[in-house]
Order: sequence, then structure tokens, then C-alpha cells
Amino acid sequence: MKFGGTSVADLDRIAAAAERVRQEAAAGHAVAVVVSAMAGETNRLVGLVEKCSSLYDTREYDTVTAAGEQVTAGLMALALQRMGVDARSWLGWQIPFLTDGVHGKARIRDIDTRLLARNFDEGRVAVVAGFQGLSPQNRITTLGRGGSDTSAVALAAALGAARCDIYTDVNGVYTTDPRIVPQARKIDRISHEEMLEMASLGAKVLHTRSVGLAMNHGVRLRVLSSFTTDPGTLVVGEDEILEEKIVTGIAYSADEAKITLVGIPDCPGVAARIFGPLAAVAVNVDMIVQSASPDGQFVSMTFTTPRADSALAMKTLEDNRESINYDKLLLDNKVAKVSVIGAGMRSHPGVAETMFATLAEKGINIQGIATSEIKISTLIAAEYAELAVRSLHDAYGLETAAA
Amino acid sequence: MKFGGTSVADLDRIAAAAERVRQEAAAGHAVAVVVSAMAGETNRLVGLVEKCSSLYDTREYDTVTAAGEQVTAGLMALALQRMGVDARSWLGWQIPFLTDGVHGKARIRDIDTRLLARNFDEGRVAVVAGFQGLSPQNRITTLGRGGSDTSAVALAAALGAARCDIYTDVNGVYTTDPRIVPQARKIDRISHEEMLEMASLGAKVLHTRSVGLAMNHGVRLRVLSSFTTDPGTLVVGEDEILEEKIVTGIAYSADEAKITLVGIPDCPGVAARIFGPLAAVAVNVDMIVQSASPDGQFVSMTFTTPRADSALAMKTLEDNRESINYDKLLLDNKVAKVSVIGAGMRSHPGVAETMFATLAEKGINIQGIATSEIKISTLIAAEYAELAVRSLHDAYGLETAAA
Repeated sequence: MKFGGTSVADLDRIAAAAERVRQEAAAGHAVAVVVSAMAGETNRLVGLVEKCSSLYDTREYDTVTAAGEQVTAGLMALALQRMGVDARSWLGWQIPFLTDGVHGKARIRDIDTRLLARNFDEGRVAVVAGFQGLSPQNRITTLGRGGSDTSAVALAAALGAARCDIYTDVNGVYTTDPRIVPQARKIDRISHEEMLEMASLGAKVLHTRSVGLAMNHGVRLRVLSSFTTDPGTLVVGEDEILEEKIVTGIAYSADEAKITLVGIPDCPGVAARIFGPLAAVAVNVDMIVQSASPDGQFVSMTFTTPRADSALAMKTLEDNRESINYDKLLLDNKVAKVSVIGAGMRSHPGVAETMFATLAEKGINIQGIATSEIKISTLIAAEYAELAVRSLHDAYGLETAAA
Repeated sequence: MKFGGTSVADLDRIAAAAERVRQEAAAGHAVAVVVSAMAGETNRLVGLVEKCSSLYDTREYDTVTAAGEQVTAGLMALALQRMGVDARSWLGWQIPFLTDGVHGKARIRDIDTRLLARNFDEGRVAVVAGFQGLSPQNRITTLGRGGSDTSAVALAAALGAARCDIYTDVNGVYTTDPRIVPQARKIDRISHEEMLEMASLGAKVLHTRSVGLAMNHGVRLRVLSSFTTDPGTLVVGEDEILEEKIVTGIAYSADEAKITLVGIPDCPGVAARIFGPLAAVAVNVDMIVQSASPDGQFVSMTFTTPRADSALAMKTLEDNRESINYDKLLLDNKVAKVSVIGAGMRSHPGVAETMFATLAEKGINIQGIATSEIKISTLIAAEYAELAVRSLHDAYGLETAAA
């Protein structure tokens, strides 16, 4: 059971979360609880570090920020004890949660479960501080963005847990963003692959890293709310999904920028000369489209990048103008990516046609297309994003689909 | 170098403390820095624990509260690095600072200095989180009241440090409380024994526990302010004090209560029947005076206790009235203890006479007397405490004494 920052934001919420743990333990299950820092605490600690030193040593950053989860772990253990549940806190270094030495975004190498196994044998709930591990140099590491989700999934995998329940502030995963489409329906079951596409396209419920980890280790996830009794959404292997839906959901990302390089002489190595320098400065690139001029002598290259990266991308391309040898450089900061996701589309042709027809009907111009086995993404003007999501949700009949 | 909570209360103060460390390191010294939690942080964390659970598991209490020093240690290391000083943080479990398993008030058993020695060999400043250690069960312990001072002194002893500098918010140790006697003079050197008496009698600069530890291990202490350039007070062995002053200082404690049991039949075991039950409920007892009635058949027993303990002491004595068999029980909550301290009084008679004469001259009645080799304490009515301190400070010429 993993509780995020809003689920442990104050002592009342910690008590409410502890009550859910108590019920699971009372049902006879061995329970490991992974906790985040209390909402706002990590930001406070990061703020102290950043104000203290702009170019900070990430080892000290980790020492400072890991304190947030340490506090919650102790408080959660106390809240459980008060309810008569035998519980103790475990810090990353006590288990240990062995990671590499890449501070600030460490990767888990191994979780030693022997001490925890003894803990469970003694009928005790293990309260584990999320987000943190131990480096080969015996120092505290943190796991970076989505760290506590990753802790929970990795621990579930190491323990061979029947399920990893991620408690958050939403009821589960929806067919699309309910703020845009009020008729959006909560999904009862979704495959890891579909969830990964949803997560990578802006459905903020789970971090892609933890979904990928769950997929690779076959960990059954449940996403549910700390504040309701809704059973949430199960994220499982495809083998557990009896009847695949053709389309599971519509995801979108409004924070995209489109960059186009025009008039590049067509010769081998163009892509490498463009994307090499961008990779070197860690600009994320997505949806690359290359097109040739009518006479075949020149090509143009279009790609998307998160809007936050666009200034750095433009500067990098300007700096490399000579080596790339383009004629013009264009930036459109007002584009959105809208995607249709569904494992069933592998065996059902026609999904793409429905998408294109729906967008055309609404007069929405498609500026780019990218596809995977279970996803079709289109790039459109940002102002049409919400209209596109609503129309597609309707076109695939998602609000009426059976569970 | 140990910095208390007010010396690391915010990032500016941490930077100022780091600058002092930088100067010591630049002078070629190997420096270990022990830090407390930022002022107010330990209270915040203790508040969370106490609100979470009234009868809390002290192991979890320690896990939560130790986070405060962890944060400061990381921030101090970062502040030093920003100044170009090679530094790293060390948590109690990393060194390790081995303690017993008495959580909340653990005692240090051993400090393994091998990793720190390597740290110094590499020219690095070690920033050590105070107040915390590691239990035999591999869990975080905290050292209780005055914990960070104790950490610093114990570490200085283990490292064989030339000096342990305790940075606080006062300039050093004074001949008496400057709020009462504005002419009070800062003491340049004082022996451990004298300091121990000063500390136990209300001079709040150092905790008795750390002074006792320093005395037992011959650690040279320096008490000085983070906020001035005053060199502070050196607390050293008597062998380092060339010319002992007869009287070093006047200490007082205004928070005393006097309890008297009247009319106890004089037979063996009276004291045990009185003080046994008080010890069992952890009432602190000081200045015991037994006096006999004129006919020798009855005795009365008077003792002092911190005012905070007086209600518990009275209730315990009432509960044990039958076994003690006293006639009357009297409480005076308005007494003060005023003490004259000086290692030189061992070899100079007449110090007590001066004290008694001075108090008599001011019409102050002495309700009890206790002496040690280097201290004479008198119990007087609380309303006379300030007058007594001022008169004695004057009588022993403390404001004019040479350094």
C-alpha cells in the first residue's frame, strides 16, 4: 500500500491512511506500507537546498530531502500502533534498498527482503520510507521524480506481492481527463502497456517509470483514492484482461512545441547532425517527421518537444546552423498531442480512420502523426485540443462502454 | 565545532557558521562540525509525534526527531562546499555513533572514528548530525536533552581533538547571570569541576551531561557566541589554570521547592523510607538536612526539589505517610538556591564566612546549607535571590578580578 503526499498531508490523513492499513492487516494480509513525504515537505526541503547552494552536491541534496519520508514513516508507524496494529518504520538504509550511486535519480539495484520477511513472520506491518535508498558508498540516495511510486512497485516485485495499491487523490484512471470530458468513465482494468501510454501522454495518476517497472516485473497495480471507497483501477498484464476494448482512452498533452527545419540539403547524416546536439543538452524529442521537397534536393525536418525544452532546443539548433546547413528554423509553441490508446487496436483495423475522420469533421488540421501498436498520436493546434479530446471520446463511444 | 539551534536557525546563520568553519579549516586544522536541528524544528517534530500518539514508541520518536539534525547536516555541508571547502555530511548511523538501545535518551557506547579519520586524511571537513546514534538493533537513537553538546564532546574525546568549541548565543560563561548583575564579568578560563557546578546550578550555557563527559575524558571546551568575535570561555582541566581564583562565580537557581517532614520518630531507616519512594517516581532531590528535636525523640527532614517536581513529591509523601510516620508535611514553593563556586576555596578558608556575613548583613535568613569541595550553597527565600547574588558578587570582588 503506497500513500502519496496528499494522502499523508497531515496527522488526520495519516490516521485515515493507517485505518486502511489496519483493515488490510486485520484481513490477514502481510502488509508493507510505502509513504511519501507530507505534502509540501519535499518542496520545502528542496527549497532550502536550492537557496543554500545553486550548484549543489546531489549527495547532500539526498541527505536533506530523504528526511521528509523518514518523518512520515515514523508517524505512520505511530498511528498504526495507536490503533493496536504492530508496526515499525524502515528507512531505505535499514532494509536496505540498494541503489546505484547516481544521487538525485538513483536506480534500484536490489532490495534485500530478508529483514522484512522476518518482520512479516512476526506479524508486523512494515512502514517503508519511499523515495530513498542506499548507495554503494553507504550514503542516502533518492530515486527522483515519481520516486515513492517506484519504491512501492520495486518492493512489491521483490516481495512477490499479490498487489501494489497506489493511494492517491483520484478515484483511478479515466478514459480521458474528466475536467475536459465530464462523461469520462473510470476504467476498471487496464493493461500495463496501455497505462504506460496513458501515463506518458499526460494522465498524471502514475509516473511512467513505476508503470514500466510494474510491467517488466508483472506487478499488479491498483490505483485508488485515499478519500473515497471506490475500488479504483487495476493495472494488470494483458492476460488478465478477458475482453480487450478496442480503444481504452484518449490522452492528450497540451504542453508541446513543434520545431521545423526547412531547406536542408538531402544527404546522409542529416538526422544525426540535428538530433545529436539536442541529445547532448538533454532535450526530449518526440514525433519526428521528415519530408522531402518536390524536387528531392532538400528535406525539412519537424519534431516536437516539451514546451519547457523549446528555448534550449532553438538555441542549440541556431548554434549548430552551419553543421546542419538548414535554410529556416520555425517554432510553433502552440501545439498539442492527442492520442487514442487501446490494446485492441492491434487486431481491429479502422481505429485510425475513425480518428482522422472525426478530426476532419471538426475542421481540425493534423500536423503530424505517430503510431505504435496500441496508440495513434496526432499533433494539432493547441486551441483545438479540448474539442479533439471531446469529439474522439464521443466517436469511440467511451462514455457508454461496458466495464 | 558545535553549532546549536539558534546558530543554524536559518540559511543566513548556517552560512555565517560555515564561514567560521572555513576559517578554521583554512588555518590548517582538521575540523569536525556537529550541528543541531534548526531552531524550532525539533519542537515541530516532537509536536507531530505527540499529537500522533500520546504513548508513543520511542523508536519511532527517534526516527522522526533525528530528521532535524539530518537536514542541518546536509545544508551545512552544502554551505561549506559553496565557499570552496571540501565537506560532507555524516549521519549517526554512517559513522557509526554506537549507543545503547534506550531510545529517546540513549547513551553513547563507542564512536568508530575510522571512516572519519579517512575523511580527514582526504582534507575534508566532516559535518556530523548531532543528537543521534545507532542502536544495537540498527535503529536510530537520540541522546535526549543536551544531546548535540554530548555528541560534540564525545566525538572530540574519540578523535582526541585539541578542542571542542561550543557555539551558542552567549559570549561565554559569566561570573553570574548578567541580567541580575550587569557588572558580571565573562570568565576566560574555568575548570571542568567549576563549570559542572555552574551548569548544575542554573548557568544554562552548557548541559551538565556534556560538561561531565568533557571532565571525564579531559576534553578542552570553549564556549563562545556565533554572533560575536569574543573568544569566549575555555573550560579546561585544573592543571591548565595557572592561578586559581578563590571564587569563580555565583550561581543561583530560583526554581526550587523546599519540603519539610516534621515529627518523625527517630529510628534507623528514616531516610530510606522517605527517599526510596521519591526515587521510585524519579523526583530529583537535593540539599537534604536532618535535624533532631530538643528531646532527641523526633527528627525533622528538609530537602529541596525542582519546583516542577514538588507536586509529585508531596503526593508521594502523603501516599507513604503511614510507613514514614511523620506528624506534619510542609511545602515552601518560594525558595532559591544561591551558590558560591571556586576551586580555590579548597585552600582558602574564610569563603563560607564571607558568604554568611554578607547574607546576614542584608537581613537574609539562611534556611539550609550544603557544601562541596568547591561550592557552598545556601537556601534562602526566593524574593531575596537577586539581592543575594548581587551582594555576593560584590563581596567577592568578582567584577574587578583580573582575567
